[in-house]
Amino acid sequence: MIYLIRRERFSAAHRMFRQDWSDEKNREVFGKCSNPNWHGHNYILRVTVKGEAAEDHGFVMNTNVLKKIIQENVIAKIDHRNINLEVDFMKGKIATTENLAIAIWNELKQPIEKEGAQLHCIQIEETENNSIEYYG
Amino acid sequence: MIYLIRRERFSAAHRMFRQDWSDEKNREVFGKCSNPNWHGHNYILRVTVKGEAAEDHGFVMNTNVLKKIIQENVIAKIDHRNINLEVDFMKGKIATTENLAIAIWNELKQPIEKEGAQLHCIQIEETENNSIEYYG
Amino acid sequence: MIYLIRRERFSAAHRMFRQDWSDEKNREVFGKCSNPNWHGHNYILRVTVKGEAAEDHGFVMNTNVLKKIIQENVIAKIDHRNINLEVDFMKGKIATTENLAIAIWNELKQPIEKEGAQLHCIQIEETENNSIEYYG
Amino acid sequence: MIYLIRRERFSAAHRMFRQDWSDEKNREVFGKCSNPNWHGHNYILRVTVKGEAAEDHGFVMNTNVLKKIIQENVIAKIDHRNINLEVDFMKGKIATTENLAIAIWNELKQPIEKEGAQLHCIQIEETENNSIEYYG
Amino acid sequence: MIYLIRRERFSAAHRMFRQDWSDEKNREVFGKCSNPNWHGHNYILRVTVKGEAAEDHGFVMNTNVLKKIIQENVIAKIDHRNINLEVDFMKGKIATTENLAIAIWNELKQPIEKEGAQLHCIQIEETENNSIEYYG
Amino acid sequence: MIYLIRRERFSAAHRMFRQDWSDEKNREVFGKCSNPNWHGHNYILRVTVKGEAAEDHGFVMNTNVLKKIIQENVIAKIDHRNINLEVDFMKGKIATTENLAIAIWNELKQPIEKEGAQLHCIQIEETENNSIEYYG
Repeated sequence: MIYLIRRERFSAAHRMFRQDWSDEKNREVFGKCSNPNWHGHNYILRVTVKGEAAEDHGFVMNTNVLKKIIQENVIAKIDHRNINLEVDFMKGKIATTENLAIAIWNELKQPIEKEGAQLHCIQIEETENNSIEYYG
Repeated sequence: MIYLIRRERFSAAHRMFRQDWSDEKNREVFGKCSNPNWHGHNYILRVTVKGEAAEDHGFVMNTNVLKKIIQENVIAKIDHRNINLEVDFMKGKIATTENLAIAIWNELKQPIEKEGAQLHCIQIEETENNSIEYYG
Repeated sequence: MIYLIRRERFSAAHRMFRQDWSDEKNREVFGKCSNPNWHGHNYILRVTVKGEAAEDHGFVMNTNVLKKIIQENVIAKIDHRNINLEVDFMKGKIATTENLAIAIWNELKQPIEKEGAQLHCIQIEETENNSIEYYG
Repeated sequence: MIYLIRRERFSAAHRMFRQDWSDEKNREVFGKCSNPNWHGHNYILRVTVKGEAAEDHGFVMNTNVLKKIIQENVIAKIDHRNINLEVDFMKGKIATTENLAIAIWNELKQPIEKEGAQLHCIQIEETENNSIEYYG
Repeated sequence: MIYLIRRERFSAAHRMFRQDWSDEKNREVFGKCSNPNWHGHNYILRVTVKGEAAEDHGFVMNTNVLKKIIQENVIAKIDHRNINLEVDFMKGKIATTENLAIAIWNELKQPIEKEGAQLHCIQIEETENNSIEYYG
Repeated sequence: MIYLIRRERFSAAHRMFRQDWSDEKNREVFGKCSNPNWHGHNYILRVTVKGEAAEDHGFVMNTNVLKKIIQENVIAKIDHRNINLEVDFMKGKIATTENLAIAIWNELKQPIEKEGAQLHCIQIEETENNSIEYYG
């Protein structure tokens, strides 16, 4: 079993809040991250897939194919967007990095399996100090 | 003459647009950066000050003092904020990194001079590929 | 299960040696790291906790709470200190990164569990080329 | 069980191709990576070994010993070389990072076990966006 | 005057040698970098342009335009290529990073000036330890 | 004129204090950096030399020669040492990064000029947030 890690980046706006909570309650739980006028990040996304190194070409998966899957299913929908308002796979969810990792896992699982590999891990670096990993 | 560089970070939302331009015109000039629902970045700010290494303590300027000046005059006003809507020193300006560098220069020049050093350079890294430098 | 990684930094002095070994023996086993006048590092600490993304707020654990736990139990005791002489949780231990990782695990396990998450991994980067990971 | 990670670097030329395929077929599968005149990378290699922290010196393994094993068995054979033409442990294999990781695993396993530790992971970063991990 | 820095990357093979020198002489002067079977690097290129922040859009230069100029005039010609054999602007020159920086300067100067900005600096990072800067 | 930048690293202990000041006064001016039991850093040193790219070999200066000069005159004397107690070129000086940059400039100026190049800049990164530059 070999693991292939592809790194991509996107820049997006978000805020953390629940509509059914008051502004005060949101501020109390989410702090400055609940700012009603939004803030944003340069997110770093690392997608790990696993599989055998194929005998004919020696790849787990062609990195250009993996790159294209991530671009079409994630980056094109989230880069330079507002995560709360514009990203279909985040609709109705609190815009934490935890929920983002789970949602991106769900977007990528099938397209990667169609190529004969398995999705192993979604890692998202929100800032240089805060990251999330999700293994399904 | 010695140069001291202090690195700070802030995360903020913005969009590039002019109110006197149509959405189409904004889209044409600023591309995806003009998204009406905002996007955001983890900005890296590097402030360079210059001066002599003082004989009594050997510093150009105490880094804790420099850090405090940057925190109070810039970070506290812009971190986890919307640059277009909430940052006083960017009011009425297009939210490019160029204009941001000039505005931060103007915020920091006097407080740094009061401490006996000179402001030399404002560098802002908007993404790992795009940076701006301003020397006054 | 979701994994949350928090990165913190500290700068400290140390030397590797055993009091019951001669200077020669220490030099032979630990090389330049046993220098009696100390040396030091900028350590990078990555603490990984795991748990479910809570339904009400979507976090494994509030990063501000995690940050505070690490600050109070580790950074406040070790930053700008001498690991051999001043850090209570390293008393009587050889100041290797291995022992440091185990000791920091022991410091953080309970406070993290009190918050409803589990400690998963302590990673310490001593230099850009040498790192240690400990999973309990 | 403690994990020790040692980072090393090497610069090498390679191309991806199969001799039993036409240039067209190689171009189709491997794209620009099959350029007949070669291209190259600064590879970053991270070797993870695991074991107990020894009671007498507190190390999983002396990093100088690990460094020497990697230097002699890998770096000396591959740095500033052509992976397809000059590296004995890659002879007859397609020069993918996947195959490189497996081959380096095989080179390092025995020398590391002789020192009383176990090889746990070979990670190779080919570019800042593409990495491979192999766990045996 | 504002400075805009754009970072791009390319991977290429090269060797340092002079055809009018013997292999021995090349080895003596260029060491392992003269390996006849080539080696390669992940080069990091930073292009700095300078100018005024335009009143109408607030940019020194649109980064997408600058990116396109660098892609067409440099990256498309050198990425995944052999610098000695395949790159027209390096023909007849020793493939040092110094000469590469001068040649890239010459490629980029006019297209950047056509856009109303000035080329200020070419920086090339050959490895994480070795870089070159050229200011024309 | 071409600029060549060589990056080296060293790990050292230090404290900031003046013997003619009381512990209280030292604490007041230098804060936690005056800890009597020392602390330490992984310093990153970048040495910039300038000159013409020589016609015969295309280098400003052979990087191996520059590396050797820095190793012998700086790294060998300061790596894994105590800057206050063991480094001859820092004797009698407050161990600020400012003073360190000036002292390293003085160590390197002549050996670099002997090789036909000029020393242009000493940059020292004490932590990822604090750096000093000195141009003579």
